[in-house]
Amino acid sequence: MSAPASLATLGENGLLRLLTARWKPDPRKVPVGVGDDCAVLRGEGKNRFLLFKTDAVVEGVHFRPREKPELIGRKALARALSDLAAMGAAPLAAVITLGVAKHESVRRLKGIYAGLEKIAKKYGVNLVGGETTRAKELFLNVALIGECRGYAPVLRSGAKAGDLIAVTGQLGGTQSGKHLRFAPRLAEGEWLARKKIATAMMDLSDGLGADLPRLAKASGASFQIEAKAIPRSPNASLHAAINDGEDYELLFTVPPSRAEKLKKEWPFATPVHFIGVMGRRGARSGFPTGTYGFDHFKQH
Amino acid sequence: MSAPASLATLGENGLLRLLTARWKPDPRKVPVGVGDDCAVLRGEGKNRFLLFKTDAVVEGVHFRPREKPELIGRKALARALSDLAAMGAAPLAAVITLGVAKHESVRRLKGIYAGLEKIAKKYGVNLVGGETTRAKELFLNVALIGECRGYAPVLRSGAKAGDLIAVTGQLGGTQSGKHLRFAPRLAEGEWLARKKIATAMMDLSDGLGADLPRLAKASGASFQIEAKAIPRSPNASLHAAINDGEDYELLFTVPPSRAEKLKKEWPFATPVHFIGVMGRRGARSGFPTGTYGFDHFKQH
Repeated sequence: MSAPASLATLGENGLLRLLTARWKPDPRKVPVGVGDDCAVLRGEGKNRFLLFKTDAVVEGVHFRPREKPELIGRKALARALSDLAAMGAAPLAAVITLGVAKHESVRRLKGIYAGLEKIAKKYGVNLVGGETTRAKELFLNVALIGECRGYAPVLRSGAKAGDLIAVTGQLGGTQSGKHLRFAPRLAEGEWLARKKIATAMMDLSDGLGADLPRLAKASGASFQIEAKAIPRSPNASLHAAINDGEDYELLFTVPPSRAEKLKKEWPFATPVHFIGVMGRRGARSGFPTGTYGFDHFKQH
Repeated sequence: MSAPASLATLGENGLLRLLTARWKPDPRKVPVGVGDDCAVLRGEGKNRFLLFKTDAVVEGVHFRPREKPELIGRKALARALSDLAAMGAAPLAAVITLGVAKHESVRRLKGIYAGLEKIAKKYGVNLVGGETTRAKELFLNVALIGECRGYAPVLRSGAKAGDLIAVTGQLGGTQSGKHLRFAPRLAEGEWLARKKIATAMMDLSDGLGADLPRLAKASGASFQIEAKAIPRSPNASLHAAINDGEDYELLFTVPPSRAEKLKKEWPFATPVHFIGVMGRRGARSGFPTGTYGFDHFKQH
């Protein structure tokens, strides 16, 4: 008799796979369902796509109770924006659900929403709807619609053996508050998608060590990373650069034939580093040190 | 010195108004933002609209901890579907956020998702994405996209003095478990919108006594209700029919010139009752008994 699965053994991703295993959306309307950074819905006309994402931040899990309210609102939207960036989409509109304890301070809530509004304005997100509900602890759920007009979103599944592996920015260092202040790489992601430079892309939310294997698996490929090529945040160890969650940088793959174009034409201040190469399916994948990323359910 | 606002004095709707007061979405892209049952985004082409909604159910607030899991999942999606119905839209796709305590039973979660899948299938909703997060208490957030193709959604704000006030189904009686098993009036709502019969519409979630004044306010009109015309659920008192929340029936207004067409052509088994008439702005509005609907934050 097998023991029933528990959350701790499944982990967040295992649980999600289990719960959504039977979801089979209509492929004429939904080219991409569960399993990528966002769902993709077919828009009207050729090369028009709507992207759809939901994500929540919960007090005590994604932010500390005494965190600055503006940064809580900022983070809630920035996380979802990072998922749009990961597919190369531009944001269109968001709706917000606020779960709030009965004796919550209205001043704090106003601060949270001020942070939300500020980042929405910065990245051109229309805040179009909201709900509030009572809850024991504060949570903020963001649902976000984005769009690709005239080009296709970049999936996790498009990497081929031989493609170079690249990341934006620097990895590791969530202890320094980066997880509250990161810039979602929307312009960078859109550029990589529009120019058809990235063959596969995702954002780094659980750490390179957990996320790259997901991209490789979705693509049916393996990977090799060169330790010293990984760009580290100031004071981040190699271990931290691989294992810290919440980098919110882009991880993407580039065919060698387009790497030169990327280097020459990349128009952003954000650095890009090549850190490895994709291999054929079944080959041994390698990190310079064996470990895993951040998972809210697992005990480390 | 005025005391700072508290949640109890604001109520859910007051809080939402306060938090979203500065949201000004781009009117070229977003004809309707906060304040109606769903947000409305302009689609590609004439008379194409996307509707966007977010809504959460929280353990202990929207369902009892020991409730049948299938009914929890069912309710989470049905509530959001009811909001689409309230504008006459057809559902397209949903994404789900699950907040879950560390020691939650996986079997229970599977039951919740089975309920979700069953109602999604029944009403043609593509389940396209999900996230899970740790939380102290179970919550399930549904974000939903719907569409109106070839006709305009019905807003709360379109009622005119002289329009008849109508409701589907029967009101009151949430104690009998109706709040878990109600049928969102999607076909009825779409018919009323497509045929241009309803001038204003919303769903009854907080009770007629709380919701009708909102429709009247949005329309800049008053209302008069005839007590004995209100259709009551079996065993529901008049007080319950006016004040019980979670009816999830449609409340809508119909110009007298279209009432005959409605009576003759209504193709559904769901009953429709005329319960009153809209008056001019500033006139005294009247319920047969003065009271208010359900608000999670207020103490009654």
